[in-house]
Amino acid sequence: MSEKIDFERALFLLVIGNTKTAEIPGITVAGANAELIKYTPPADAELLYYGRCLSISSIPATPDGKPTPALITYTALRLTKIPLLVVDSGLMIKPKIPYISLDAPVGENIALSPAMKIEDVERVVRNGKILGEQLSKLVDLIIIGESIPAGTTTAGAVLKALGFEPKVSSSMPNNPIDLKLKVINEAVKRVKSKDPIEVIASVGDPVMAGVYGILSGCKRALLAGGTQMIAIANLARNLDCDFSIATTEFVAKDKNVDLSLAPCRVYVARIPLEKSKYPGLRAYAEGFVKEGVGAGGMSFVAYSLGIKEDDFLKEIEKDYERIVLV
Amino acid sequence: MSEKIDFERALFLLVIGNTKTAEIPGITVAGANAELIKYTPPADAELLYYGRCLSISSIPATPDGKPTPALITYTALRLTKIPLLVVDSGLMIKPKIPYISLDAPVGENIALSPAMKIEDVERVVRNGKILGEQLSKLVDLIIIGESIPAGTTTAGAVLKALGFEPKVSSSMPNNPIDLKLKVINEAVKRVKSKDPIEVIASVGDPVMAGVYGILSGCKRALLAGGTQMIAIANLARNLDCDFSIATTEFVAKDKNVDLSLAPCRVYVARIPLEKSKYPGLRAYAEGFVKEGVGAGGMSFVAYSLGIKEDDFLKEIEKDYERIVLV
Repeated sequence: MSEKIDFERALFLLVIGNTKTAEIPGITVAGANAELIKYTPPADAELLYYGRCLSISSIPATPDGKPTPALITYTALRLTKIPLLVVDSGLMIKPKIPYISLDAPVGENIALSPAMKIEDVERVVRNGKILGEQLSKLVDLIIIGESIPAGTTTAGAVLKALGFEPKVSSSMPNNPIDLKLKVINEAVKRVKSKDPIEVIASVGDPVMAGVYGILSGCKRALLAGGTQMIAIANLARNLDCDFSIATTEFVAKDKNVDLSLAPCRVYVARIPLEKSKYPGLRAYAEGFVKEGVGAGGMSFVAYSLGIKEDDFLKEIEKDYERIVLV
Repeated sequence: MSEKIDFERALFLLVIGNTKTAEIPGITVAGANAELIKYTPPADAELLYYGRCLSISSIPATPDGKPTPALITYTALRLTKIPLLVVDSGLMIKPKIPYISLDAPVGENIALSPAMKIEDVERVVRNGKILGEQLSKLVDLIIIGESIPAGTTTAGAVLKALGFEPKVSSSMPNNPIDLKLKVINEAVKRVKSKDPIEVIASVGDPVMAGVYGILSGCKRALLAGGTQMIAIANLARNLDCDFSIATTEFVAKDKNVDLSLAPCRVYVARIPLEKSKYPGLRAYAEGFVKEGVGAGGMSFVAYSLGIKEDDFLKEIEKDYERIVLV
């Protein structure tokens, strides 16, 4: 890959939360079953730091055992030595690792009601802005990843509310598009303006509020993700922050994602998982999971620092052996 | 002042919490009355960021109106542009500003029972260590201040538990020494070892656990405070962290503080408040308040960056006018 991003000092912020939208049966596979889905964001955060999860006994996985993309981010953080901070922006369960609280509520089910109260969005955005301002004094690049089950559905609703006709991506190859579109179409009926705060409150989620706030306070950011970061980038297009998006080739190749909707530069990181000796990793190249927890963005940053694709694959496999196969 | 501390990048961490020890009548003046005392730490944190408090209608003050030392720290942060992060290490009330949670409980009243359970101290220390490790990747100096009412009493108990015969400082000139010594002597009866975790659990407080944890993860720190930082420095003397203490001249001149108990270098910052035109600021030079919220340490850091004493006084007075006199 020839493209790279330049920076002197970077920090990886993982912004995590939950919504009741994720409780709609069949809408997400970010967790082996309905009860485990709410543990996925804190477990992803724990995995990034400890290389294992404390809140659940194994690492987050789809019902058929495909591992969380946090695994790839873990490898990239380990190799680049970039520091990690975790931000609670609406969690149901707190992680067993220090976290920064933005005092965000859990998001409601947008099929049934607004995601959040306007005053809650405003508070989360204000807290995010303060955080962005303070962290911008320390680093010249804030890399922002997310983990929020059913996040592609709320992202699709935000894009539609902003006037786009979004495609809807998913961590499943047999993407439940009809179900997602039904939820999205129901939700956007309540949208009355394109004001970012109102759109987030009507059909978004608390992670969007947190990331939007951080962007409103910081100078330069790399949004590490796919559909969700495209939605956030469109909400944030008028902010005084220099941001771009970096995602995986698996998202870029997904016919259900339209990267052209991004109002900013989009970097695509190739991760040669199709060459892996492990089926759980090859599954990514076959359309499963594809992105999340900042995996694409942190891979891109690792490449920008000179790490080679094939070496990166070997290191991911090492971590897979140690974390998943034990 | 000729002494200075060198660094390339620094960060100010305010570690705040509460204990039920502070509910012993007469033991602290960190708050205008018993109900307000528990709001003092979050209000100090808000003042440092906003230049005003959100959780209470005025700034923290003694019952007779002497302002919180957070005012001095606010001026120093403003002048030096050093970033601020707030750490919740056992708060009763959360601040209206983003904060890093170490999942710490409120401390118990050490006159009656152990301060914390051993497993709680271990968890807070583990979380603090992670935070210290990550922040050490971003800065070469972590400046640590504290705000915890009745902190000099728990600090005195820790010093006695470690085998010292501590003097007991206070934010009051008519220091309730007898009451504090009674609490300390009662508390230390339960101490069975000099192990830092056990001492904190027996007679300490959650802020000590948090700061001890941060020190165990970070490379270089400046402990910004008086008696409490002397206690923490003695707990942390075997850690692999290069730390020193910086405090105010008001503490250094207090016959009830013995800086020689510090196992590390102690810097003393002169703040010429005796020259102030405002009685509320001159009170510091007359033995009131004296230190807290990292005031001495951040003053020392401001001087290290070239700010002159008299200019610093003028800037403190400007903030006093804007924040206190309005």
